[in-house]
Amino acid sequence: MEYKDKLNERIELINGALKEYLKPKYPERLYEAMNYSVFAGGKRLRPVLLLSACEAVGGDINRALPFACAMEMIHTYSLIHDDLPAMDNDDFRRGKPTCHKQFDEALAILAGDGLLTMAFEVMLEAVCRENERSFAKAARLIANYSGSEGMLVGQVVDIESEGKKIDDKTLMFIHDNKTGGLIKAALMAGALIGGADGDTVRNFEKIGYNMGIAFQIKDDILDLTSTQEVLGKPVLSDVRNEKQTYVSLYGLDNAQQDYETLSAGAVKMIGDLGEKADFLKWYACSLVNREK
Amino acid sequence: MEYKDKLNERIELINGALKEYLKPKYPERLYEAMNYSVFAGGKRLRPVLLLSACEAVGGDINRALPFACAMEMIHTYSLIHDDLPAMDNDDFRRGKPTCHKQFDEALAILAGDGLLTMAFEVMLEAVCRENERSFAKAARLIANYSGSEGMLVGQVVDIESEGKKIDDKTLMFIHDNKTGGLIKAALMAGALIGGADGDTVRNFEKIGYNMGIAFQIKDDILDLTSTQEVLGKPVLSDVRNEKQTYVSLYGLDNAQQDYETLSAGAVKMIGDLGEKADFLKWYACSLVNREK
Repeated sequence: MEYKDKLNERIELINGALKEYLKPKYPERLYEAMNYSVFAGGKRLRPVLLLSACEAVGGDINRALPFACAMEMIHTYSLIHDDLPAMDNDDFRRGKPTCHKQFDEALAILAGDGLLTMAFEVMLEAVCRENERSFAKAARLIANYSGSEGMLVGQVVDIESEGKKIDDKTLMFIHDNKTGGLIKAALMAGALIGGADGDTVRNFEKIGYNMGIAFQIKDDILDLTSTQEVLGKPVLSDVRNEKQTYVSLYGLDNAQQDYETLSAGAVKMIGDLGEKADFLKWYACSLVNREK
Repeated sequence: MEYKDKLNERIELINGALKEYLKPKYPERLYEAMNYSVFAGGKRLRPVLLLSACEAVGGDINRALPFACAMEMIHTYSLIHDDLPAMDNDDFRRGKPTCHKQFDEALAILAGDGLLTMAFEVMLEAVCRENERSFAKAARLIANYSGSEGMLVGQVVDIESEGKKIDDKTLMFIHDNKTGGLIKAALMAGALIGGADGDTVRNFEKIGYNMGIAFQIKDDILDLTSTQEVLGKPVLSDVRNEKQTYVSLYGLDNAQQDYETLSAGAVKMIGDLGEKADFLKWYACSLVNREK
């Protein structure tokens, strides 16, 4: 099968499971809002990484599926809350009104809370069912990288840095945590569930670090060089928000170069895992060349 | 030891553990905001219930401590988000400025998100360490009752019902879920960790149902009959928000009567657990007679 078909198949698998978890129940408007944001055109980057890391170490991706869905729920909750008026105050995301614009602020806050909680409901259901220590470890790791050791602290520092001069250490902290947190979590949790040993899991942490920083640099570059039509969201938002980015700190050429070095490093490390990691390697490469 | 001393000792134990979990780290302002709300004078109702349910079935309360702290984190996150301008828009809570008033809205949203995530970090750490299925089940149960089968859905229906005529079924749904969710979770999780069998855990669900509804009726009564000085928060807020309550639906006398019947039922069921449940029974009785 072509890698591209395999990717689409994988995305279908994830979307099918997400749809099942988010099947409308009472109160309907909550499920409507959660579904709206989860199915607003996300690329499923983190769940695909999780499943593919599981596959790369010889695991069964179907057992990893609840964790893949949980990653997308956590990612979506963070987008809903980040878009709120008190935070980034964004009206559009992926070309569609943001959750609080489509519904209202109260429901957007609750839909975000609901998705974060549901991520743990889904993972803990799998932990209880499978009764394997690696599943509990994967859930714990995802909790840590979503919270006090990852995304959340990255977002706090990001919000607090707005309009301020920040040093490169702070910028790297933001990138490694805000974006890198969930990418590391996806890769490491996938590997854990796939039965990887400690060394391999730590290796995935390095791959995730590289990919997370690279992904965020690319975001910063695209915000400066792309168009709203291509990205599906307003460009130049960093300039508008007087936000320091990798590009504003190091210049566009250096940013591009570092981006390529980091990406190449990640791809090389994945290649070292052998044939089973071929899809993950292809997917990582395709991220390098993304234009949106 | 007097029950009152035992209660204070138990609260001290919970506060000490919470302080440890919330020890300031980078970014400091996040930890400041989380600490501010967690240590804003809460009665520690849910964690005390969890520890005492564990004790009531013969368990070791020290092993249940991480779960007790997680309950308080989840409770506090819900208060922070409920108080936000887009939700109840409350400036004071327990006589102090609410989190978004003391800090700002963005940090309040993130402090809430942080506490919810940390609750799962703390529980999953315990699940990984103890490697006992009952721990994973307790964490799952707390996730469910905080989310799609409890507090969160209760809050959504509550918000959506504001200013509308609602029937008694809807009101009971709100009470049983919004308030009852975490009370049931605390009792059932405590029992699970204490080693209780399925029947006993289900019994605690009934106790929690009674206590949750009773607790909320009492809240509604106090909002109408108490003063800001005693409660530490503005009274008559339900009238101001045109909110239907148990009292507005059934009248003050019926509310008081139902409150007493439900409380007595809970106390009776706890009594049936025998001597080990004496403290829990005393505590449940003291809640019946609370004036704030």
